[in-house]
Amino acid sequence: MKIAVDRVREGLEDLARFGGTPGEGVSRLVFSPADLLGRAYVKERMKGAGLNVSEDAIGNIFGTLPGTEPELAPVWTGSHIDTVLRGGRFDGMAGTIGAIEALRAIGEAGAPHRRTLTAVAYTGEEPSVFGIGCLGSRAMAGVLDLETAKAVKNEAGKSLYDTLAELGYDVDRLDAVRRKPGDVYAAIEMHIEQGPKLERSGCRLGVVTDISAPAYFNVWVEGLQSHAGGTSMADRRDAFAATAEISMVLERLVKEAKSVYATGTIGRVDVTPNALNVIPGRVHFTIDIRNTSDGSTGEILAALSEEMKRIERERGVKVRMQTINRDLPVHCEDGMQDLLAGICERRGIPFKRLISGAFHDSMFVGAFAPISMLFLPSRDGVSHCPEEWTSYEDVALGAEVLAEALLVKANE
Amino acid sequence: MKIAVDRVREGLEDLARFGGTPGEGVSRLVFSPADLLGRAYVKERMKGAGLNVSEDAIGNIFGTLPGTEPELAPVWTGSHIDTVLRGGRFDGMAGTIGAIEALRAIGEAGAPHRRTLTAVAYTGEEPSVFGIGCLGSRAMAGVLDLETAKAVKNEAGKSLYDTLAELGYDVDRLDAVRRKPGDVYAAIEMHIEQGPKLERSGCRLGVVTDISAPAYFNVWVEGLQSHAGGTSMADRRDAFAATAEISMVLERLVKEAKSVYATGTIGRVDVTPNALNVIPGRVHFTIDIRNTSDGSTGEILAALSEEMKRIERERGVKVRMQTINRDLPVHCEDGMQDLLAGICERRGIPFKRLISGAFHDSMFVGAFAPISMLFLPSRDGVSHCPEEWTSYEDVALGAEVLAEALLVKANE
Repeated sequence: MKIAVDRVREGLEDLARFGGTPGEGVSRLVFSPADLLGRAYVKERMKGAGLNVSEDAIGNIFGTLPGTEPELAPVWTGSHIDTVLRGGRFDGMAGTIGAIEALRAIGEAGAPHRRTLTAVAYTGEEPSVFGIGCLGSRAMAGVLDLETAKAVKNEAGKSLYDTLAELGYDVDRLDAVRRKPGDVYAAIEMHIEQGPKLERSGCRLGVVTDISAPAYFNVWVEGLQSHAGGTSMADRRDAFAATAEISMVLERLVKEAKSVYATGTIGRVDVTPNALNVIPGRVHFTIDIRNTSDGSTGEILAALSEEMKRIERERGVKVRMQTINRDLPVHCEDGMQDLLAGICERRGIPFKRLISGAFHDSMFVGAFAPISMLFLPSRDGVSHCPEEWTSYEDVALGAEVLAEALLVKANE
Repeated sequence: MKIAVDRVREGLEDLARFGGTPGEGVSRLVFSPADLLGRAYVKERMKGAGLNVSEDAIGNIFGTLPGTEPELAPVWTGSHIDTVLRGGRFDGMAGTIGAIEALRAIGEAGAPHRRTLTAVAYTGEEPSVFGIGCLGSRAMAGVLDLETAKAVKNEAGKSLYDTLAELGYDVDRLDAVRRKPGDVYAAIEMHIEQGPKLERSGCRLGVVTDISAPAYFNVWVEGLQSHAGGTSMADRRDAFAATAEISMVLERLVKEAKSVYATGTIGRVDVTPNALNVIPGRVHFTIDIRNTSDGSTGEILAALSEEMKRIERERGVKVRMQTINRDLPVHCEDGMQDLLAGICERRGIPFKRLISGAFHDSMFVGAFAPISMLFLPSRDGVSHCPEEWTSYEDVALGAEVLAEALLVKANE
């Protein structure tokens, strides 16, 4: 199975025009005019590749290549085409165009496959507009329901529900988007790594073992605002000193965690009143824990909670923690990992197994189907910026391995 | 020497009308219309108390009661009348009105004194308007010169120099404000404690042993901004985690310091980009160290600097520290401490010796004259707020002790 580099380049360069500005990268926020144009382009390209196009109530786009036994559960592949503000042209698009080109190649080759093959373009993977990401795949997993669609709003205050209704989607039928186990036989997503590991190790492809899931928390520390000069060290109830200690504790717990892929980040910190000579009375901060094991995250959280209680006692502060979201990490099916690795090995393609620190639509697809992911090298390891780059040759090579794997799965 | 409570109450209640709003405390920022009215009132009250009034080029107001040997260096007493936004009616005012009433009582009693006695109202002790406090006493100490007066600006961008010039002060003669050692024989400032120690211990007066001095610093931590999901714990250069460690180190060093009065505060923290899922690339924060021993502050800073170097190495970050100011702590002259304590003891007034964690004009006066301070209890230990309160009886009692001490010093 050969995928022409020119076809991959054409698809990615065409897509990059919608929302692309020289030097500014691509800004194709979900449901923006650029995204709507991009979605129309994807449907046209699917048709041109010989696929039957359909769309669901949240805008997930499906391009199907019917199998010889269409009653069997289909095999999916795909990614997303929305971007962050001033993002790149590969994050999501490499896997969407790669999926279409893989199915085009299979169709053109007349390669026999029992199961239907489906190229999917998931709606709104980036959380840039509505604060939560993976809108399309999240709805498939049943995690985004009508209530949530009405609750989440863009910066202008318009809800996802109203946005979809205005665009003519039958949003009241959002329940029909949901998939249950068995509906999809297997799903493989190709995506750029967005990190430096493949490039550093000279690999052209990566086989993902686990998708690390994020757990986000708000934390409020309530101390006592007082004069930096008039309050002795023994008398103070310093909300920032307590925050600093929690930060050190979090770092230690994450480093000591059984899961070596656990990370912990305090990314946002708001100190009140934030004045040089005033002991902070209140601090709000966020915690971002990523882990490939939810059990390990649970252990970290339990230990953190105990430590917070100790810090409350010792420092005379109140600590309140609120879960923003706690998504479940997904293990990529071992069989499909081995399938992808085996194809690379046979073809002499340098590859390595690695985890995905970032989340992807596959995390939600994994709630109802066995999933796997194929990673492509990111130049300099950067992503979500105009400098994001992956060679078209690598995308084409990935699509070839993808096509081979899809055929194997579609004939199981 | 008897001071009438009614006189003290009258002075403080009169003053509280300039910039006072029911429930909102007193807002009499330096050189605001309320402050100008308050200054005029102070001059009138000084005259009414039989004092000769004069003013220097930065607005320090002097009310003198000539001694029998006016060629001798005078004895000073006084404080300030400017407030913070929504402050109280005692911080500064208790010592200003107390000084006027002490001199009035001495004058009315015809008590003999060789040295001239001077009640001083220092200009702008609170840093609320120009970012630096103690404008009047700072200029006396030679720490605030013409250059500084042109450099420091209020929020509207107007310099202290222009503000003074507009109000008709002969600001180009700022050098004449400066005092040299020997110009003032002794200075005693009465002030509210702004802390809970006197109230807690049931004391009506406090004899200050040392004025703790502030040392202010800006610190910038430069790490590497990166994706919270894609960056392993080993790969990250987290500017906030480094800040948290510095905070813990500062706290430990201050608690372990030889000077038991050392405090360390990180009051302001600005995290960039301050987003939940992004590892902070840069943090700016401030350090406020107070100490009664500059040598001890030096030891803390030296150890902190070593620890910062270690943190730079271990975390792959850059830490830069800039001194904003490092004022010198002042020891209250032992002789005057004992004089004040002796008067309290003889009169059966419950008192204690304590340090001043906050700074006062006396800190700068201490640069050219022996100083001492008399503290009055603060109800609930609070200050810089509408709830700030000290009983008029305590202010009057303090003024009586002050008058006795002034007479002793003025006859030395």
